[in-house]
Amino acid sequence: MSWEETANQIPPVDQAAIAAMRERVDQLTKPTGSLGRLEDLAVQLAGIAGTLNLDVGRKVVVVAAGDHGVAAEGVSAYPQEVTGQMLALFAAGHAAINIISQTVGADVIVVDAGVAQPPADADERVLPVRVGPGTADFLREPAMTHQQAATAVEAGIRIADDLISDGAGLLAAGDMGIANTTSAAAIIAAITGADSDTIVGRGTGVDDAGLVRKREVIQQALALHRLDPGDGLAVLVAVGGFEIGVMAGIMLGAAARQKPVVIDGVIAGAAALIADRLAPAVRPYLIAGHRSTEPAHSVTLAHLGLEPLLDLSLHLGEGTGAALAFPIVEAAARLATQMWTFAEAGVAMKSDAGQ
Amino acid sequence: MSWEETANQIPPVDQAAIAAMRERVDQLTKPTGSLGRLEDLAVQLAGIAGTLNLDVGRKVVVVAAGDHGVAAEGVSAYPQEVTGQMLALFAAGHAAINIISQTVGADVIVVDAGVAQPPADADERVLPVRVGPGTADFLREPAMTHQQAATAVEAGIRIADDLISDGAGLLAAGDMGIANTTSAAAIIAAITGADSDTIVGRGTGVDDAGLVRKREVIQQALALHRLDPGDGLAVLVAVGGFEIGVMAGIMLGAAARQKPVVIDGVIAGAAALIADRLAPAVRPYLIAGHRSTEPAHSVTLAHLGLEPLLDLSLHLGEGTGAALAFPIVEAAARLATQMWTFAEAGVAMKSDAGQ
Repeated sequence: MSWEETANQIPPVDQAAIAAMRERVDQLTKPTGSLGRLEDLAVQLAGIAGTLNLDVGRKVVVVAAGDHGVAAEGVSAYPQEVTGQMLALFAAGHAAINIISQTVGADVIVVDAGVAQPPADADERVLPVRVGPGTADFLREPAMTHQQAATAVEAGIRIADDLISDGAGLLAAGDMGIANTTSAAAIIAAITGADSDTIVGRGTGVDDAGLVRKREVIQQALALHRLDPGDGLAVLVAVGGFEIGVMAGIMLGAAARQKPVVIDGVIAGAAALIADRLAPAVRPYLIAGHRSTEPAHSVTLAHLGLEPLLDLSLHLGEGTGAALAFPIVEAAARLATQMWTFAEAGVAMKSDAGQ
Repeated sequence: MSWEETANQIPPVDQAAIAAMRERVDQLTKPTGSLGRLEDLAVQLAGIAGTLNLDVGRKVVVVAAGDHGVAAEGVSAYPQEVTGQMLALFAAGHAAINIISQTVGADVIVVDAGVAQPPADADERVLPVRVGPGTADFLREPAMTHQQAATAVEAGIRIADDLISDGAGLLAAGDMGIANTTSAAAIIAAITGADSDTIVGRGTGVDDAGLVRKREVIQQALALHRLDPGDGLAVLVAVGGFEIGVMAGIMLGAAARQKPVVIDGVIAGAAALIADRLAPAVRPYLIAGHRSTEPAHSVTLAHLGLEPLLDLSLHLGEGTGAALAFPIVEAAARLATQMWTFAEAGVAMKSDAGQ
């Protein structure tokens, strides 16, 4: 199925369920509004699921890895081989995202969206999408072909669809890819119109000279490609990454099946902007897990109208900030369905005592 | 054992473990600093435990309930009988704190610190401390006797000690008590010196007239009792609550056994201020779970030098904001101990690529 067909299948959220959940939340045994953002989350989840009977089901973090030709321009503090090495580490279960996922009871699915040097011994534990052996250098030419972009997005849709058929009810999209904060910043500047100089951050930790170089590369690439901010696929083709396409596909695929997706940091944010351009109906299915310290992330969240659940100064990627937010989302769903109402509990409602 | 003896037993945090954990955190397979506040948490936990081998063990939320004579002054939106009714609901497992604790894998211990109308049928599932049938009205006389205050604190110490002997490694202190935001605001004003008018909030939701009344009551009570801000027990005696004394004791008892305590909202914050006055060594053992919307809470956190992990506009109490932060604390501990280092993983370190 083409990504366009999936995009057209995303239903609007259920306004009746939203209204009914707002009413239910106010009947639970707590002062009105005292669960704060958990109440808003419960309402959002009801709208997504189209029911008050919320059950997040299996929680899954999809970590998509891809390499970036633009790494050759000296925009990252780490060599490109680290992408494949980290992919192997995810598959072996020893990276940050594995530990956090264990803590919150989530599974990790590792996707090779297209790394330059795939790990030899990790094949069985890695989903081999492999759109290509890394993108082309987008300072000189488009990062990928139109066909590659569609392939990446459609692979993400299929992965989400399969996971949901397998019981997943809460997904997160995370990333790994040396130089991908450069790709993400270019996407975010192209789509939001934000000034690329002010939104470029240090990524994994480039020094001052590296930061200047990142800014130059993004400015020159945007001048080269002359992107239409409304054309999400063209932006992905020009300055995107295979893992970013897969993540955008995860979001579309989940929304088409009426499941929420928690987005991670700046790379997932860039993927969300692309997903939002491909299918504006996806937006109410997105939950922002956290606010990254990368400046482009706050611009992205504001553009999408998302308020993050966590703000812990993370900037690791891998889905870490999304997975850490899973318990908050799960708590909201459980509170809304399992807490007793004042009537069920036989607890006195508000009196005139304070009046 | 008296609370003074426990206070004297709280060891300073382990500076060698702190330094060693800082070093270890920088060797893990991630860009330096990219786990943000989780790295600081891991360092704090190492200092508390005196080892790099962190294990949070059993997670327990202690919910202490108590009634307040000052409720007679019309400072709450709910009638006093709700305290006992909610105690029964906690014991039956249907309140917000029960659902959140299930979500994060924590146990709930319910303590009747001294409610006016204890539930008849919940005895077996409630720890009966019962310092008294609610405090006296502190607008007219001290809320409790010196002996009652010591009894409440020492009960909390004993509960923490028993839980830790039983395998608990991460505790939270939560509360229930109609009118206890009035008590908490009085404590916070007395100890921090903050202007009581600006820090008083709506608690469970008093209207404008109720808010004016709360401010009057606190001002008059502070004028009546003329408290020494350095004398934590005297503040507890004059304007405190039995559940607040128990919570302060939980903090002292946990610290004496080198275990961290996650504090909840404004009531737990008031208890932390008292614990801090009784034993300044307790402070590095405290973790702020969240920032409540009650204005007095931010004043309290600033006074204690604590930065909350969550900011979700909660103002429910019961330990909800603390329990929601448990996965973050647990993730920090697990990441620090279970993630592989660059050397263990065979992943390339930073190159000169960005320079």
